[in-house]
Amino acid sequence: MECRCPHVARSRWWRGSGSGTRWGAGEWASYDGRVSDIPPDLARLRSSIDNIDAALVHLLAERFKCTQAVGELKAAVGMPAADPGREEAQVARLRALADDSGLDPQFAEAFLNFIIAEVIHHHEHLAGGS
Amino acid sequence: MECRCPHVARSRWWRGSGSGTRWGAGEWASYDGRVSDIPPDLARLRSSIDNIDAALVHLLAERFKCTQAVGELKAAVGMPAADPGREEAQVARLRALADDSGLDPQFAEAFLNFIIAEVIHHHEHLAGGS
Repeated sequence: MECRCPHVARSRWWRGSGSGTRWGAGEWASYDGRVSDIPPDLARLRSSIDNIDAALVHLLAERFKCTQAVGELKAAVGMPAADPGREEAQVARLRALADDSGLDPQFAEAFLNFIIAEVIHHHEHLAGGS
Repeated sequence: MECRCPHVARSRWWRGSGSGTRWGAGEWASYDGRVSDIPPDLARLRSSIDNIDAALVHLLAERFKCTQAVGELKAAVGMPAADPGREEAQVARLRALADDSGLDPQFAEAFLNFIIAEVIHHHEHLAGGS
């Protein structure tokens, strides 16, 4: 039986070869009899990704609560929605944090720009601008 | 002296009117003598945003470690980089989580698509695809 799963020794799952086994090609089976069309290590990683995504959504919700308050404050005191100096400092800081944590700094910058564009859109809406 | 700060009673900061005060228009001063061109509530909110952004960057770094492992696993067993069924389930789940936490579900979906596009790009690179 051919096994192509790179972590079979740890996960104790086998991939079917399509002949001579009780599971087909493209299926994985554990010693305790479970059969799945998803490699078990992939299922484990996807579970972690789902947990991280839930945390990201909740952090983004909290971030938007803060930026909503910033928008209301800026509108109340007549400050412009965008602040290029602040955004430049944020980008530089996040690129450095990304570099330290093994994230592509270019992606971190694109990510921040993606969020800031949404925030400015909200602020302009609050200020009654375009 | 005109004060336009909406939270002055709590923050005990005053905004200068530009006449008859020792700070200018567009400056805020506290009772302990600090002067700043940033309203203190804005400084406080920005500090929270910076903390949240640091957490987001570290979570994204962890997420990319997972998706990097997914990409290597998929390349090893010959699975395609993209998985429309999985992505559809992720979008539906994150929209529901966003709705529960007060985040715009449309933004949550755009955010996930933004990340997935980057991940697929990495997976295709690992698989030697376009």
